[in-house]
Amino acid sequence: MKTYNIAILGATGAVGREMLKVLYERKFPVGTIKALASASSAGKKVPFGDRELIIEEATEKSFEGMDFVLGAVSNAMSKKFAPAVVKAGALYIDNSSAFRLDPEVPLVVPEINPEDAYQNKGVIANPNCSTIITLVAVSAIRRLTEIEAMSACTYQAVSGAGREGIEELEAQIKAEVTGEEKVNKIFPCQILSNAIPRIGDELENGYTTEEMKLQNEGRKILHLPELKVCCTCVRIPVKRSHSISVQMKTKDALTIEEVKEAIKNAPGCVLAEDVKGRNYPTPLDTTDQDLVYVGRVRRDLLNGDNGIALWCCGDQVRKGAATNAVQIAEIFARQ
Amino acid sequence: MKTYNIAILGATGAVGREMLKVLYERKFPVGTIKALASASSAGKKVPFGDRELIIEEATEKSFEGMDFVLGAVSNAMSKKFAPAVVKAGALYIDNSSAFRLDPEVPLVVPEINPEDAYQNKGVIANPNCSTIITLVAVSAIRRLTEIEAMSACTYQAVSGAGREGIEELEAQIKAEVTGEEKVNKIFPCQILSNAIPRIGDELENGYTTEEMKLQNEGRKILHLPELKVCCTCVRIPVKRSHSISVQMKTKDALTIEEVKEAIKNAPGCVLAEDVKGRNYPTPLDTTDQDLVYVGRVRRDLLNGDNGIALWCCGDQVRKGAATNAVQIAEIFARQ
Repeated sequence: MKTYNIAILGATGAVGREMLKVLYERKFPVGTIKALASASSAGKKVPFGDRELIIEEATEKSFEGMDFVLGAVSNAMSKKFAPAVVKAGALYIDNSSAFRLDPEVPLVVPEINPEDAYQNKGVIANPNCSTIITLVAVSAIRRLTEIEAMSACTYQAVSGAGREGIEELEAQIKAEVTGEEKVNKIFPCQILSNAIPRIGDELENGYTTEEMKLQNEGRKILHLPELKVCCTCVRIPVKRSHSISVQMKTKDALTIEEVKEAIKNAPGCVLAEDVKGRNYPTPLDTTDQDLVYVGRVRRDLLNGDNGIALWCCGDQVRKGAATNAVQIAEIFARQ
Repeated sequence: MKTYNIAILGATGAVGREMLKVLYERKFPVGTIKALASASSAGKKVPFGDRELIIEEATEKSFEGMDFVLGAVSNAMSKKFAPAVVKAGALYIDNSSAFRLDPEVPLVVPEINPEDAYQNKGVIANPNCSTIITLVAVSAIRRLTEIEAMSACTYQAVSGAGREGIEELEAQIKAEVTGEEKVNKIFPCQILSNAIPRIGDELENGYTTEEMKLQNEGRKILHLPELKVCCTCVRIPVKRSHSISVQMKTKDALTIEEVKEAIKNAPGCVLAEDVKGRNYPTPLDTTDQDLVYVGRVRRDLLNGDNGIALWCCGDQVRKGAATNAVQIAEIFARQ
């Protein structure tokens, strides 16, 4: 069997580690595998299946001989290394937002627009985590008709802020029990027993960078350049898995049964009609796996027979980041 | 100064106890005060300022000589006792949902529709907690123009399920640290590190009783019988204070500055432009007080100049229940 040489750029973070886990779990045909990170992490070890990889410092020479480089680094680092990856002839699959809206760069969710991946010039972007989870659900409906407008409110886990986000919540849980002071460094205020209605930087229109991603990336992924999205992103004290409450207006009228059937049949989607005796999913139900669970499918009460409302949950470290990136590589590796 | 005799029906619960606290804090002109509950609680004590009240068993004879009875009991208990309260000549201010949609019963938020209170025939209903918090914010805008439609997603605290809701979350926090098993009895699954997208019973249209309250009660309180509301109610691991993300379509176009000015000037509302250096409120900022904090005021991106989006937080045990009931009594006691 043909194997592929892979490098993980940013292998020490939550997403980078998960990429290694997912590659192993999905039995990706790995040849050489390299774990790259900043100089300060060089020499540390990260697990890959039953063995450990020694972290190497990422330099512009790290990518020679690689087939795929999966990036889980900041926008600045991604921009810095992308040219070297492309020059080395590898395909760069980037989880940062640096290239997502670049017209030369495909933005791909393999269940939705795998064909776009072939238009790449060496770089493919992995969408935002909430965007992936929402669109896996919404695209089931988009197969039936166009989506004209969406409202979305997110319930985002602390792991969206990386390992330090989880650690901060865990430390606050412990402090709550011991009576010690609760410290916040990653989040702008205490996250335990709280909800923080701002993720990302605030733009001139009052929305945040995170909130606008659902519209901007959604238009590109769904091939709906006129799609209007109004999104509110909120961080809640959940360790892992994002949830999104979505209302949408469709071009053609749809019955609720048609929508449920479409969700049931869509790749990457589960229609949660009986999750542990409940007919709705929660973040805990979806943690540590790759499917997006969809429940509460009903009429959006504002848009008559063209209105659909639903609730979806997915593990944003996996399907919202690591798994989606590995699936993009699989488009090429498994063809 | 004239004083008023008051009975609290359901004085041992979270809302009943808070009613006593709020009456004392607001220096309500209390004459005789009675704490009533079921036979099983009779003889127990509840605090009222610097003294304690001994719980008496509620019977149909408990209301003689009372001016106000504040109810914090189930719908069934409320229906059972309301006729006896009215017969005794007291005004029954009911926090249950038993009478809210009864055309003979005013449904009152004192900052919004105090004049409706005078149409009572012995019973006045206190609205749902999320409804009160949302409408205190929305009514600031309704003073400028009619609201045609609203979408709302709630982030509701466990205290909405009473004292046992808080205790269940606290026990799960402790179990997380000690490694013991997490038990759930009040909520259908673990609430720690989770989000539960169903509050109330599911109706035929797929919405829950809780979700439909914002439309049904909102129409009555705002005097907008055609108002359309699409609501999703979600329980999150917050101890106290509900938050609601609201989008709305207004009849007339409004500028964001007009809306902010209206919120700043509306009774019961705070425009959160600088809460501890942040320009948005969180549940923790609003816990244990009576004001509704409003932030993230911006265009709803779906409705052009007629679209407004905002985020509001308020303590649902206080303004969402106990304080609102006491304020209704004050309409009559302070006139």
